[in-house]
Amino acid sequence: MQMLSNRIKAVQTPIIPTVGDLIAANPGTISLGQGVVYYDPPDSVFSAPAKFNSDPENFRYQFVEGIPELRASIRHKLIGDNKIQNRLNEIVVTAGSNMGFLNAILAICDPDDEVILIRPWYFNHEMAIRMVNCIPVSVDSNEDYQPDLTALEEAITNRTRAIVTVSPNNPTGVVYTQENLTAVNNLCKQRGIFHISDEAYEYFCHDGAEHFSAASLDDAASHTISLFSLSKSYSLASWRMGYMVVPEQMFLAIRKIQDTNVICPPVISQYAALECLKAGSSYCAPMIEGLGSVRKYFLGGLKTISSVDHCSPTGAFYVFFRINDSNLKDMQVVQKLIQDYGVATVPGQAFGMENGCFIRASYGALEPTVAKKGIDRLIEGLTALIG
Amino acid sequence: MQMLSNRIKAVQTPIIPTVGDLIAANPGTISLGQGVVYYDPPDSVFSAPAKFNSDPENFRYQFVEGIPELRASIRHKLIGDNKIQNRLNEIVVTAGSNMGFLNAILAICDPDDEVILIRPWYFNHEMAIRMVNCIPVSVDSNEDYQPDLTALEEAITNRTRAIVTVSPNNPTGVVYTQENLTAVNNLCKQRGIFHISDEAYEYFCHDGAEHFSAASLDDAASHTISLFSLSKSYSLASWRMGYMVVPEQMFLAIRKIQDTNVICPPVISQYAALECLKAGSSYCAPMIEGLGSVRKYFLGGLKTISSVDHCSPTGAFYVFFRINDSNLKDMQVVQKLIQDYGVATVPGQAFGMENGCFIRASYGALEPTVAKKGIDRLIEGLTALIG
Repeated sequence: MQMLSNRIKAVQTPIIPTVGDLIAANPGTISLGQGVVYYDPPDSVFSAPAKFNSDPENFRYQFVEGIPELRASIRHKLIGDNKIQNRLNEIVVTAGSNMGFLNAILAICDPDDEVILIRPWYFNHEMAIRMVNCIPVSVDSNEDYQPDLTALEEAITNRTRAIVTVSPNNPTGVVYTQENLTAVNNLCKQRGIFHISDEAYEYFCHDGAEHFSAASLDDAASHTISLFSLSKSYSLASWRMGYMVVPEQMFLAIRKIQDTNVICPPVISQYAALECLKAGSSYCAPMIEGLGSVRKYFLGGLKTISSVDHCSPTGAFYVFFRINDSNLKDMQVVQKLIQDYGVATVPGQAFGMENGCFIRASYGALEPTVAKKGIDRLIEGLTALIG
Repeated sequence: MQMLSNRIKAVQTPIIPTVGDLIAANPGTISLGQGVVYYDPPDSVFSAPAKFNSDPENFRYQFVEGIPELRASIRHKLIGDNKIQNRLNEIVVTAGSNMGFLNAILAICDPDDEVILIRPWYFNHEMAIRMVNCIPVSVDSNEDYQPDLTALEEAITNRTRAIVTVSPNNPTGVVYTQENLTAVNNLCKQRGIFHISDEAYEYFCHDGAEHFSAASLDDAASHTISLFSLSKSYSLASWRMGYMVVPEQMFLAIRKIQDTNVICPPVISQYAALECLKAGSSYCAPMIEGLGSVRKYFLGGLKTISSVDHCSPTGAFYVFFRINDSNLKDMQVVQKLIQDYGVATVPGQAFGMENGCFIRASYGALEPTVAKKGIDRLIEGLTALIG
């Protein structure tokens, strides 16, 4: 019989489509599930198709690594916003940041090689590592969900190829300190492994928290892979646009991978990305500030429930909390909240939290007034369930 | 030192960007290199962005497997054009057909599993197989570049997971007979392996040749994976749109893979694809017919050179020929033709032809008058080199 591969059986079933099916079966559900923003892309994005159409050459394949104008624009942004000095042959446009991560794993890992993820981790990272027969090694973050440097160092073996950080973090919403990111980057350098730095939420910082790019450190260039996304900041999710900054010696390897996978990132989306970068981070700043009030409202609500533990995240648009009730399983809670309270969240098991009942809630996907209504439903449901 | 993976070192350097670099260094070169069409997408594609923009939900992620309207339209097309009876949960939209192939390999192959390719093969297939640590097994086609059934059967081992066919073929331009495709499909069924059928050039048939879809056979559904592309027929190359028809039990596996890689195919491109499928194959029929005269012109020219062997391909827009001169290497010929005669082709080694000097020329990428000029340069160059 024609069977599926073992590698694909080892990959977890994606949680977002699963939760999506539950939402579809329960009309009227307010979703604090998927990680998207509620606002639209910059208006100038709507002018991108006409510019794209004006040159028939744009209908053919373009460069594997992205069109030159966009890469030049990214280079400028990286220098200005991230303080990452870079050369053009370190920049690759990807069809979303997940593709950037998969590119990185294929370029640096052989089967049975290990990649260290800080738990709770981003599920698609763990899935990508398993899908190409590598081994995700989970290292728990400390009680503030910051990297635990001692534990990371102890987890490195002779099969370790990289440590992955996500800051601002998905799913915890925590912004890693410059000190911690510097320490992780130095550790990687010293041990001859790569630092993969996922910065998809770079502009989503609250309460004075500041984003730091590890690749801005001196001597980071040869061992740091930085991943960026336009899905969140510019609401370009469905256009599939991200980019990666890689050590120059990796450029041709990424070209091979991307040629085999997608040939080139969609060119019309690259024209849209150009418009976003022209608009710059001042475009999303007011909306992100507006999300700050939703965040405060959310954290205030959670405080009223004694048997919920959470930290006060200052980044992204996630709150990650633990329900202290040993009788409850996370997926049960998620189902009950959807079916009985009309609000969707994501279970902690998707992020590697098998022990304990953890939930991720996203407050970025809805207009602040709707998000607050969803938060009310969530607090009401949690109070009734575990009061 | 932080090193690249062995798997990526084992993947060949993509030939199209390499030839592209040579073309860029020799301005005025006419390219018979890359496999694209010279004509533009249907006009209705230009209305797609406005339709996409009219619903802000389109800016968020959409279904991993593609938007429902497009999948319904594909289902209809498959029944009408390909005689493939199918259910909705057998159709997955991909960001190009290469992604469909990578999806398939990941879903059915573990490391060290074997996939049989008919040589000369399509380079990105071989690259994808190696990239995920599987083993491409080359089986030579027969003297007409049709599948050699006996050789295919003999190549099957207990590690074989699939046989791949590409018809109309890249790089040879040969259309596989219904009889041969049926035999390959039956062989796969009988031996418990998959048949991966790449049909990117389905509408590109000349001189009465007819395209046949193996998945239209009775009982093919559970072991046949069919790959389609909108890049060629509708000139949608840069939008990255393809789709795959898979056995229903594979649907969730493909969802896992695509969620990890691209999350969802670019949604604006899916709106463009919808317009193309509405236009249907009658859109490309006149242009494909026009290519027929270029094909005849090309074959007539080749006949004037005695030391060139070629067949008379009736599909796609490729001519694949052998230069009978043991002193010449294919890449030397390609370089010389670009530098001295201003015409670009692709060396046979990229398609697995290590013995002998083979060249692929594409006559689809240029307006017929320009293509003929390129063919003149090619014939002139070949005559001078090997006359």
